[in-house]
Amino acid sequence: MITLRAAAFAVVIALLLGFIGSLALRPPGAGPAVLASSGGGTTGPAVNWRLPTAFGTNLPALGDNPLYVADALARSSSGRIVLDVYEPAEIVPAFEITDAVRQRKVEAGYTWLGYDQGRISAAPLLGAVPFGMEPWEFTAWWYEGGGRALGEALYREQGVHPLLCGIIGPETAGWFRRQVATVEDLKGLKIRFAGLGGKVLQRAGASVTMLPGGEIFQALEKGAIDATEYALPVVDDKLGFDRVAPYNYYPGWHQPATAFHLVVNLALWEALPPADQALLETACTAGVTRNLARSEGLQGGVIADFTARGARMETLSDEVLLRLREITQEVLAEEAAASPDFARILASQEAFRADYAKWKSRAYLPRDF
Amino acid sequence: MITLRAAAFAVVIALLLGFIGSLALRPPGAGPAVLASSGGGTTGPAVNWRLPTAFGTNLPALGDNPLYVADALARSSSGRIVLDVYEPAEIVPAFEITDAVRQRKVEAGYTWLGYDQGRISAAPLLGAVPFGMEPWEFTAWWYEGGGRALGEALYREQGVHPLLCGIIGPETAGWFRRQVATVEDLKGLKIRFAGLGGKVLQRAGASVTMLPGGEIFQALEKGAIDATEYALPVVDDKLGFDRVAPYNYYPGWHQPATAFHLVVNLALWEALPPADQALLETACTAGVTRNLARSEGLQGGVIADFTARGARMETLSDEVLLRLREITQEVLAEEAAASPDFARILASQEAFRADYAKWKSRAYLPRDF
Repeated sequence: MITLRAAAFAVVIALLLGFIGSLALRPPGAGPAVLASSGGGTTGPAVNWRLPTAFGTNLPALGDNPLYVADALARSSSGRIVLDVYEPAEIVPAFEITDAVRQRKVEAGYTWLGYDQGRISAAPLLGAVPFGMEPWEFTAWWYEGGGRALGEALYREQGVHPLLCGIIGPETAGWFRRQVATVEDLKGLKIRFAGLGGKVLQRAGASVTMLPGGEIFQALEKGAIDATEYALPVVDDKLGFDRVAPYNYYPGWHQPATAFHLVVNLALWEALPPADQALLETACTAGVTRNLARSEGLQGGVIADFTARGARMETLSDEVLLRLREITQEVLAEEAAASPDFARILASQEAFRADYAKWKSRAYLPRDF
Repeated sequence: MITLRAAAFAVVIALLLGFIGSLALRPPGAGPAVLASSGGGTTGPAVNWRLPTAFGTNLPALGDNPLYVADALARSSSGRIVLDVYEPAEIVPAFEITDAVRQRKVEAGYTWLGYDQGRISAAPLLGAVPFGMEPWEFTAWWYEGGGRALGEALYREQGVHPLLCGIIGPETAGWFRRQVATVEDLKGLKIRFAGLGGKVLQRAGASVTMLPGGEIFQALEKGAIDATEYALPVVDDKLGFDRVAPYNYYPGWHQPATAFHLVVNLALWEALPPADQALLETACTAGVTRNLARSEGLQGGVIADFTARGARMETLSDEVLLRLREITQEVLAEEAAASPDFARILASQEAFRADYAKWKSRAYLPRDF
């Protein structure tokens, strides 16, 4: 009975997501509705770019931020600058957006740079690092600590210009069908996990696989996998994980911050008038604030709902966390040894973090105060 | 000798600040330099507003953010939208900016709403609350938790439209000439302190006074006051407090977040074309990202410098913090009992915080991990 109900739930959710997604998708070239403007209109060549995204725009915080950015641009330019947001895989596969921008199959895209890990080993450092920086710390490194210059240089070789355009707080450490009390419990576990965190779990003895968001529920429900990480509680809720894997683990050690970028074909970027470059930069920087606000603001109620429905909110033990951190340091050191780019960016982040720790450790009240 | 050297240091710093400040000030109407744009220029009526600010633009994070916002607007509009930033007291006293905007003596201003406490008792809730929300939590409340609507309604009665335009992390709990080991040590202490935190210290037995930033060093050095809070380490460093009051206390219980707003005369705001409203909103929202990045990014090195010069970085004991929190709750309850506006906004913040705590307490690694 549980299984049937869970399957029915998944089907309903999938239909709903599809429906909402189709509403969110605007026909190419039509652009969002813009209020008529008496005097604020902008002149100059129209910018009408296709913007494939890596996450469904129906997913709060994870996927809806490009809609905010596109709307801010359209309104600020009286409709002259239009980014047509496309759902994942509609015109470009979710994991191949940067490459499509590089090849100018599309003008721009909104993605998580960690998906470039196969081609660009240092890319995940710009997306999410296990036991890495918190969201505000990452933005401080990006804008004030040299991160932006390093990120732009890394992607300049690819013919791509990355703009920091969104950031969210920790993804939960995952949904498990059984409890995880010790590091031993990770051995042999079949788990869906992304990025550098996946490499860490693999080394801890888990069997790590990568599945798109839409396939996870069924895999968990059938027992093809024992556990999954995916995103924030408000997103995991929409995917129904608590129905089939009731143990939800915290803290989000593998992605304390997850950054998103608007990637633009470099030649196109350099040909833009300076005012349009400034508009794109400003809208993306505003997107960072709005994205983090949603990420921080929407989770509390969802966690209460999970608890009310019988899911178990659990915290990984210090023993497990300390061992995972040790493994993380080994993985990062190996990646750095294999790639000068990785080594350069990691060194910059570690120097910044050592400096930031002097502030973080003193300035704030304890988190439970 | 110490006294003479300290005084000489203060004079040099004051001269430097004045010089840098004068450089930062642009002649009204001239506007910042803007790159020529081939196609991105905007049309429509020029917007050329005077923008008095409450903090010197030479003060990092605390005072320089309006320069970023004005520059983003000028670049995005190819120079059509110009905010002429004026230093504190140059055309409007630092504490009276909102009132000058209300009376349309100036079109807009950049300020800390806590300075309106005398006329609008609920205003400090939009600026900084002791033991209140952290910066990212405040932005979540503002954009996602109903804060913006409450703030706009509060100021609509004043004929003023507030845009959230910047935010910084904790101000340090202050600089003291002597150690503060217990709550008793606060009794009779002469201290410069602002906002609701000042009311809390007053009730704890301190003698609280308010001085502008430029007068604090001399008052400390002469012994007219025993202690002061002012701002972030990187700002306090420029004012030289460590030379005359070597005990620097943490955490920043009285201002875990300090928000800044761009306030616009309401009639002027409503007459703006929608595209210009969108440009101002987007630039301010970007300002929030950039301001927090500077606030988080610039403090670590300064704290190391203080330590190297012999200042003492101290942490208030749990006993002192718990007592100050009790008093804070009494002060907030009294203010709420006296003002329906205060009660309404405080209730919204407290409901949001109760919800947010479910996330904050689980999602993040410990601050010392």
